[in-house]
This record gives sequence, C-alpha cells and structure tokens, in this order.
Amino acid sequence: MKKTPHKVILTEDQMPQRWFNLRAAMPEQPDPMLRPDTLQPVTEADLAPIFCEELARQELDAEHEFTDIPEPVLEIYKMYRPAPLIRAYDLERALGTPARIYFKYEGNNTSGSHKLNSAVPQAYYAKQQGLAGVTTETGAGQWGTALSVACAYFDLSCQVYMVKCSYEQKPFRKAMMNVFGAGVTPSPSMTTEAGRKILAEDPNTTGSLGCAISEAVEAAAASQGGKRYVLGSVLNQVLLHQSIIGLESKLALEQLGEYPDIVVGCAGGGSNLGGLIAPFMADKLRGVKAPRIVAVEPASCPSLTRGRYAYDFCDTGRVTPLARMYTLGSGFVPAPNHAGGLRYHGMSPILSKLYHDGYMEAVSYEQSRVFEAAVFFAKHETILPAPESAHAIRGAMDEALRCKETGEEKVILFGLTGTGFFDMTAYESYLSGRMTDYVPTDADLQKGFDSLPDIPQNRGL
Amino acid sequence: MKKTPHKVILTEDQMPQRWFNLRAAMPEQPDPMLRPDTLQPVTEADLAPIFCEELARQELDAEHEFTDIPEPVLEIYKMYRPAPLIRAYDLERALGTPARIYFKYEGNNTSGSHKLNSAVPQAYYAKQQGLAGVTTETGAGQWGTALSVACAYFDLSCQVYMVKCSYEQKPFRKAMMNVFGAGVTPSPSMTTEAGRKILAEDPNTTGSLGCAISEAVEAAAASQGGKRYVLGSVLNQVLLHQSIIGLESKLALEQLGEYPDIVVGCAGGGSNLGGLIAPFMADKLRGVKAPRIVAVEPASCPSLTRGRYAYDFCDTGRVTPLARMYTLGSGFVPAPNHAGGLRYHGMSPILSKLYHDGYMEAVSYEQSRVFEAAVFFAKHETILPAPESAHAIRGAMDEALRCKETGEEKVILFGLTGTGFFDMTAYESYLSGRMTDYVPTDADLQKGFDSLPDIPQNRGL
Repeated sequence: MKKTPHKVILTEDQMPQRWFNLRAAMPEQPDPMLRPDTLQPVTEADLAPIFCEELARQELDAEHEFTDIPEPVLEIYKMYRPAPLIRAYDLERALGTPARIYFKYEGNNTSGSHKLNSAVPQAYYAKQQGLAGVTTETGAGQWGTALSVACAYFDLSCQVYMVKCSYEQKPFRKAMMNVFGAGVTPSPSMTTEAGRKILAEDPNTTGSLGCAISEAVEAAAASQGGKRYVLGSVLNQVLLHQSIIGLESKLALEQLGEYPDIVVGCAGGGSNLGGLIAPFMADKLRGVKAPRIVAVEPASCPSLTRGRYAYDFCDTGRVTPLARMYTLGSGFVPAPNHAGGLRYHGMSPILSKLYHDGYMEAVSYEQSRVFEAAVFFAKHETILPAPESAHAIRGAMDEALRCKETGEEKVILFGLTGTGFFDMTAYESYLSGRMTDYVPTDADLQKGFDSLPDIPQNRGL
Repeated sequence: MKKTPHKVILTEDQMPQRWFNLRAAMPEQPDPMLRPDTLQPVTEADLAPIFCEELARQELDAEHEFTDIPEPVLEIYKMYRPAPLIRAYDLERALGTPARIYFKYEGNNTSGSHKLNSAVPQAYYAKQQGLAGVTTETGAGQWGTALSVACAYFDLSCQVYMVKCSYEQKPFRKAMMNVFGAGVTPSPSMTTEAGRKILAEDPNTTGSLGCAISEAVEAAAASQGGKRYVLGSVLNQVLLHQSIIGLESKLALEQLGEYPDIVVGCAGGGSNLGGLIAPFMADKLRGVKAPRIVAVEPASCPSLTRGRYAYDFCDTGRVTPLARMYTLGSGFVPAPNHAGGLRYHGMSPILSKLYHDGYMEAVSYEQSRVFEAAVFFAKHETILPAPESAHAIRGAMDEALRCKETGEEKVILFGLTGTGFFDMTAYESYLSGRMTDYVPTDADLQKGFDSLPDIPQNRGL
C-alpha cells in the first residue's frame, strides 16, 4: 500500500503570499547589468523607459528577501494555483528505481506552462501604472500565450513578436493568443527598424528570440510611453515571480516529510529553473542542506555547458543593456530542426553566477533522447509533456537510473513546466523517425562568440 | 473580501470511492435495450461478445445504487482527480449578476476532458478480463485520446475509428493518440464491411459517429474474442463512471455550504451531463431538493429539443442493439460546419427517460452564440473551453443574466468538460467571422426520422 498520496495540492490558504528573492541569499552577487553606451551599471531610471516602474525596482533589488504578491495577482493565481506536486509512482515502477521521484506540474492552466506565473504580475504592474499595453517576444509560444491570458484579464493591449519559424510551425499558438485579444507578428518583421535590418542582412532567416526581443523593445519605445516591454525569462524579476514554483514545492514536500537530494529543471533562459530551485538553492547557499541542483539544456543550444561567461546583449539587435551571463553570443541562431523552446542564446545572470561559482551542475541532451523520455513518461504518468519539460524528465530519469545501479533511495524533484498540446508536429516527427539531432561544432559556436561585444569587461574572461 | 475560496479541490482521501448508479433512484426505468433480431430485451449473455463482462453487468444493473471503484482505477484517478470546483468570480462581475456561478472543471488531464473518467475503468476491465485490446470510435477526438491514455497505462492495444471530417480537421488529435500507442483510422474506412458499404453509398461522406461505431463494433467482433468494443458516451455504464463528476461537485459545494438551484450541462450522448447531474437528480427524484436541471445541445444536432423518443440503433450500420432514446435517426449526419463534438444522433436512454418524464429541461444554441460565450469566458476565467463545454457556459451565462433581471441570487453549477486546445481551427473560424450556423429544417430532420427502425415498438410513439 502507498504511504504517501499521489499528489499534494496545497489549499489556497497555504499558497505563498510572498515571492522569494534568491539574490538576497547569494554570498556574491551577479555582475551588474551595464548600459551599452557608458558601460556603467544600469539604474532604475535607465530601465524606466523600457520596463514598468515596479518591475524595474524588482530587477535591481538584491536586498529584500521577500516581496509581497499583490492581492489582484493572488486572485488570478488562485484560479489555477497552487499547482500539484505529483509522485511519479508508475514511472518509478517502470524504471525499477529505488529513488522517489516527484514532479511539480505547472501545465494545468490554459497558457499550458509556468509562464503565467510571471505574466500575471507583469500585466498587473503595467495596468497599475496606467499603461495602455505591453509588447513582448515569444519563441515556442508559451510566454506569448501566458501574457495574452494575463492581459485579457486586465484589459490591456498585448503585442507579441513571435519567432518566425515557430509562427509558421504553430499556427494554433497564434490563434490562441488571438482568442485572448493579443496581436501576433512573425519576427523578424518589416514593422520595426530592427526587423528590417535583420531581414536586409538575411531575408530567409527563421528568426530568433534575440531578434524578436529587439523588435518588441523597439515597439514599446515607439509607443511614446504608452506601452512597456515585458520579458518572460532571463530577468531577475522573472525569477522572483517564478519562485512560487519552488516555494510551493518545498511546502508540499514538507507535508510529506521529504527533502530533495537532487533538483532537476530544464534551462532555456532560466525562468522555470530559477523559480523551482530558489528555496532549495538558498538552503544550499546557507549551508542548511546540500541538494544537488541540475540544469538540463538542449545540446543544440548549450549556453551553460558550452557557452562563455561574458557580458552580452540580451537581444540580436543590440539595443538592450548588457548582462554578464553564460551565452553563445547574441548572433547565435539555433538550428531550425530544434523543437520547442529553450533556444535562447543566454542564461539568467543569477543562474549563470551560481553555475560559475559551482553551486549548480549542467547537462545537455540531444532532442531525440529527450522525446524518448517524453513518450515514456506520457505512457506511465498520463501527462503529455512539453518538449522543454521533457529535458527535465530525461535528466530526472537518468538520475533515477543511476540510483537503480547504486541502490540509493534518493529523492528526486523535477519541474514539469508545461503540456505538449501545441507540440504535436514535433512528436509526430519523433514517432515517424524523421526527427534529427543537431550538435553545433566548435566552429559553429565560434561564430556566435564572435558576436560578443568587444568591451574591456569581456577581455580575459 | 471574498468569503469563499476561488476553488475547492478535494483531497485524495475525500475522493469518492464508489460510483453512483442514477437508475437505482429512478421511479420508472428507461425502456430496455432490445436485440434487433428478436426485439427482446438484451441479456448480459447477448452483450458479452461485444462488451467486457463487468461492463455488460454494469450496463444492465438497475438495482445497485453504488459500485466500488476498483483500486487500480482509483490509482489513475488520483493522478488527475479530484477535479477542481471553481467559483467564476470574474465572470459574475463581468455579467453583473447576483447569481453565484460554479463550474466543475474536467480539463486538467492530458486527454483534455472528462472522458478519461470512463476510459480508465473500461480499459481496466478489459485488461482484467485478459483481453488483448479494445476498439472504439471518436468524433471530436476527446474520447479516443482518453482511451489511448488509459490503454497506454494498462499496456492494452487500442484501435480508434475517427470520424473522417474530424480526422482531417484535427491532425494533432491523431498524433496525440499515436504518442500513447493507439492506432487511428479515418471512418468510414475500407477496413470494415460497414465502412465499405457506407462508402459505396456515398464515397464523399464526411463520416459520423454512428458510422464509426459500426466499424469499431465490427473490428472487435472480427478479433475472435481477443478484443472488445468500448464506447465513451450514451451507455448506462458510462454514466455510472462519470457520476464521479457529480459526486465530487456535490461534496465540494457542501464544503462551501452551497446547493445548486440550477445545474447546467452540455449534452451530446450524455456522458458529462449524466455524470454531473447524477446526485442532484437523485435528490430531485426523491423529493429531497428541487434543482432545475438544464441540458444544452447544439441547434445543429438537436436530439432532445427536436428529436423523437423512439427505439433506434446506436450506430449507422445498424449492428448494435436498439435503445429507446431521443434520437434524430441513425441516418442523421450533422452538417460538416458543426464544430466540436455533441454530434451524436441519439441521447443516453437514462437522460432521455428523465427528460421525457419532465425532470429535466433542454435548450439549444447555434454555434456562433456558443463561441461568443467561449471567448467571453476565456477572457474572464483564463480557461479556454472546448466548444462542447462552451454550450454549458452559454446556458449558464443566460441563466445568470436572467438572475440579473430578477435580482435572484441563485446558485448555478455547470460542467466545464474540457479544454479547447485542439479546437483552434474552430476558434479561428469564429474570430475571423467565417463561422456559419446551421439549423436543420423540418425536412432535413424528417430524412433522419425516416431511418428509424420500423418495428412495432416504434408505432404510435
């Protein structure tokens, strides 16, 4: 007989009322973002024309350990949260592992992923500030969908620049955003200077997140103050909002008397990983506990495992501040055969710093091995995972298989960030044997590194 | 401040351990199913070649009020259940109604709908009996997906005949079933006698559920006992399994000190409606409470509001037993512009009897009004509903608007059966103004009625 339930869903009363700021627990801070013109650290005033005021404050706040979640944000969170923490009993049986595998499932909302956790406060703060709307970019479409849902609720206009190859491969993502009233433009487009410039250089480009960011930032700037740019990953503010994933996971595990030996998350820009690990990493930094923290990234876009820890632009059009992070260079464009998200050239500066300082491990997988894990998981746990999330599944399964070899009853927690409902083309490609893998050569990567800004801060890194 | 939470999710311990058999509470039983050859009531022995033994027993059981849910079925239920009961606070505000609107949301599982509740036990009983697999039909794809998920878990083969127009409009549904290992054949097909016959008569037919049922039944029969046919709606056994929806809803409302004045459900074959209303209808039949029970159906397939209460085949190929139900005739084929499910020619015999005896009301809506409600709901409640579920939303919204006129603070409960993730083509059609409505003329309906079997039991009905 089972001793523990299949899942723990906290009550609304138990849902955390504050976000946790991982930076406040870091012994050393990430290097500051720099203005590209002066190479001086950015200030809230520098960020104000692009970001909402409160979000600019959160972006630079390294002091406050907690930030109260505003009441209207809690109201929406309670529509779909707390999210379940699920024990993967049948997966354990199928693997024959003595490990206990738990996953935090963030796919039970219409946006289909954890992205809604940050979309809601970002839309709220924009509304609060009296703005007319927001602009953003989206890759696989998860963030754009989440922001559309949040903006519809707050009656805020929403303009999404969607990476062109995703726009074409996933017409239903566009339709979904349209249902919620958002406008969707394939990027690069002729509607912005950044887009026109990139198209002039390469008319056949399939687009990149970096490029879509440039367009969205430009569109916000062109609104003369009526709109602001919002971003679904990488930023410190996003990790703050996503800390709700980790806080809930920790509380739910405590109810079961468990603490993870290994925490595994997929890593693109770092929004899910940073949120999931936040309270566990804090325990580690403070020497309270010593969980292993594992980032899983695609071999085709290996910013942590093969990137440089350098100052880089967050976008391809080179209009954003410079952030010191693990990066493949803002000129890096992932192979078009790459399915799903996790295709950003950089990585959250917070996570980059923690990885650089040895608090976190990173592994990468080719996509066919990731889809193999996704299908195996689906059959045993009845949930069809997003390709992004399946990276974490692959990582967790391999850790569990190692436990099978050693006989260790480790507790593994991984983040299941979303559903694969909008990724059926990729699943079909995998099932039919048409899916191909791509691992960039050192020469491929060098092209990206050549796009790194040639500034004093990058010399000798 | 809110007095009640946004939602109630029962704990696994609180989840009902028994299904409730609505027939046991009915003062008069539905007329029995008849063998088409002898016109005598079917027996368990008659059903055994088609249905699993335990399901044949459940189909004919009018006595036992409760049936224990087998432990392995509870194990899977607990992966995604209990399902949330959600208070539609923002919808209420947007409508300006004094009514309190609750909905039971069944879309938080990978099959995307309530259909999994019956797919799991049906797959379990098949496995239990030592069968190699099951065959079935699917219209919009919800049932086929649910059965694929359940069969993958129990390692059972699964062959799905999918209505051809859905197969073509929804390629991702097919891909999803393939992920879970099911085979999917567009119906009518050349693989069965029933399919070949229908194609010979009309090579361009877009198919119908009735026709897909004929093919699935034939394929099961052709397996020489290795497989059985399973059905996702209409049958008494399906309503039994789906009673978990109503039982959980009632428990959750009790926690809030609420009882519904009006229960609204969408009605195709009756699986969701029958499950949702079961305990409330029982209260009504026993004179304990007097809720209004409202079935909402599409104007394009109006079996309750415009059908005949007659004996009819459950399929187009006329191979199944005869059931007395509200029906448009097994020869009725819904217009191809009809989006989503709810396109079955008949209606659950249990619900038909209750409707006939005046315990239940029925309304119908054209699909553009249904999609209008769907989009409105999505923007306010952040959930993208399936077109089927949106019929119930439309019905509940109209009841709430009547409360606004009268000032009555009624409690409205409706069933939100699933997500619209796989219906983006229909949403796009609605948003772009290309969606058309269709209401069959009396002459259109007459063609369907002409297909009713000419048997003594149907004379004078």
